[in-house]
Amino acid sequence: MTSSNPAISSGAAKPGTAGANLNLSKEGWYTETSSLWPGQGLSLQVDEVLFQDRSDFQDVCVLRNKAFGTVLLLDGVIQCTDRDEFSYQEMITHLPLCALQADPTKVLVVGGGDGGVLREVARHQSVQEIHIAEIDGMVPKVAKKFFPQMAIGFDDPRVTVDITDGIKFVKEAAEGTYDAIIVDSSDPVGPAEVLFQKDFFEAMHRALKPGGVVCTQAESMWLHMDIIKELARMCHEVFTNGTVQYAFTTIPTYPSGQIGFMICSKQSQGPLDPRHPKRPAPEAAAGSKHGPLRYYSSEVHSAAFVLPKFAKEALSQHLTF
Amino acid sequence: MTSSNPAISSGAAKPGTAGANLNLSKEGWYTETSSLWPGQGLSLQVDEVLFQDRSDFQDVCVLRNKAFGTVLLLDGVIQCTDRDEFSYQEMITHLPLCALQADPTKVLVVGGGDGGVLREVARHQSVQEIHIAEIDGMVPKVAKKFFPQMAIGFDDPRVTVDITDGIKFVKEAAEGTYDAIIVDSSDPVGPAEVLFQKDFFEAMHRALKPGGVVCTQAESMWLHMDIIKELARMCHEVFTNGTVQYAFTTIPTYPSGQIGFMICSKQSQGPLDPRHPKRPAPEAAAGSKHGPLRYYSSEVHSAAFVLPKFAKEALSQHLTF
Repeated sequence: MTSSNPAISSGAAKPGTAGANLNLSKEGWYTETSSLWPGQGLSLQVDEVLFQDRSDFQDVCVLRNKAFGTVLLLDGVIQCTDRDEFSYQEMITHLPLCALQADPTKVLVVGGGDGGVLREVARHQSVQEIHIAEIDGMVPKVAKKFFPQMAIGFDDPRVTVDITDGIKFVKEAAEGTYDAIIVDSSDPVGPAEVLFQKDFFEAMHRALKPGGVVCTQAESMWLHMDIIKELARMCHEVFTNGTVQYAFTTIPTYPSGQIGFMICSKQSQGPLDPRHPKRPAPEAAAGSKHGPLRYYSSEVHSAAFVLPKFAKEALSQHLTF
Repeated sequence: MTSSNPAISSGAAKPGTAGANLNLSKEGWYTETSSLWPGQGLSLQVDEVLFQDRSDFQDVCVLRNKAFGTVLLLDGVIQCTDRDEFSYQEMITHLPLCALQADPTKVLVVGGGDGGVLREVARHQSVQEIHIAEIDGMVPKVAKKFFPQMAIGFDDPRVTVDITDGIKFVKEAAEGTYDAIIVDSSDPVGPAEVLFQKDFFEAMHRALKPGGVVCTQAESMWLHMDIIKELARMCHEVFTNGTVQYAFTTIPTYPSGQIGFMICSKQSQGPLDPRHPKRPAPEAAAGSKHGPLRYYSSEVHSAAFVLPKFAKEALSQHLTF
């Protein structure tokens, strides 16, 4: 998850306060706290702070930890780590792209400035154009320096980068442009809230081809069921006659150890059921610099939509199937 | 996971050192650290320490946290919380019991002194006898006082409690006694290591009926793949001509946010495939004090065996299917 919107506030701040300088314990540990997960937080031992600056939009920090390698924080919130980023990047990308009936040719990424989603989209050989709208130019710069295995996504000749407001970009896109829009956003607190609002989803619906799919970062079913329910309800209103589904992946460095995705499809000839892949998992092309997939498989795709009973019951009236 | 073996050491100890007294930060937070997950740890804000004592075997602590409610720690390691215990208890119980071909009548629980697994076993109406071998008598006492929703498991008239060494208990059981043995153990460091060793698995194999199933707590695929691989390899040697499989559940307060289970079946007429339930999810009996299931369903059962690609590849040579 990388920020695509200005000035995301970092919430509560004990014992490690997020800010221009990371607040470490005297033993050198950082605890990720937020008003979105009160009373709990993942703590990481900080071996070294590699980078720390304030962009026009947020505090950007890179640190090194023995368990997870290099770690990117925006406004004090963990965005990705060397060790487990593949889970998030593969799932937020291949769930929508492999759910499509037709081979995708044109894909938009909103946020995703670390390049990891671009890397995954590029595995799909049918794709001819990949657009990315990331608001904060410092994030790609930092990714290229400290996370080369993600920033490799920027090297693909099919990629066009716009350092711009993702909402504005989507609103200006021609109707029916994209096969898929992937929203690799930060949490819905402060101004990033707009990426979880109806206005933005209506703009994305308009910019999609019929049969196209949106996939957005959609928080943890263990921590944020109220947010997820509200998001599903709103998506149901926007994707009338389309489909709305929720899936999740496991990832140790996100709060509660999992994160979910809201996957919505625009009406076509018939409803698209995104729960089962229509296309095989993309293989790395011969001679490709991308390694093999490490999380996603066709089996994992279907299993990701099978929710624990409490989550299924909470969301049942808002999901299509 | 509750301890069933003496003197489990608590590993590394910064910033919150496990010990007779919880080591809290000056802001009142506790960080769960261990040599099993170096450089990281879940931090919980401690609203109140409700209980703290040393049993013959370990430090026992109960605290209150705004996110997870009442929390049980043994030697400084989180065992269960009000908020998420149902995920672990339902999955470690219903995965093996619903995988059985025949209705189970006799079930053994090793460890599990909080009563949560007993509560879940009791949902199965066919079960006539439930034995539990828990080494530490302080754990059931503490559970009855602070975790009544789990300790309710002890109230079932089919339950026989032995405060004893689980290994000794299994070794003394008559051959072919149990339909299922559930090992609700702590981590394989220090003396609890024996619950992960061949000697114990051979004794369990002997104590099972043909077609019977063992289900053991088997750590996190994100953190402990070496332990899991070694366990799977050893299980394969013991359950010759039977089956060995690995499944997992999501649970925010265990390290990395997930925990797995090794599920082994003893040879019968044909191999048992535990990946797909043979029996429906147990419903609470009319008038039962047990609430409805909150995590397990038949769909969740099958999905729990679908592993991320990295885990499937790491374990493939040691699993049956």
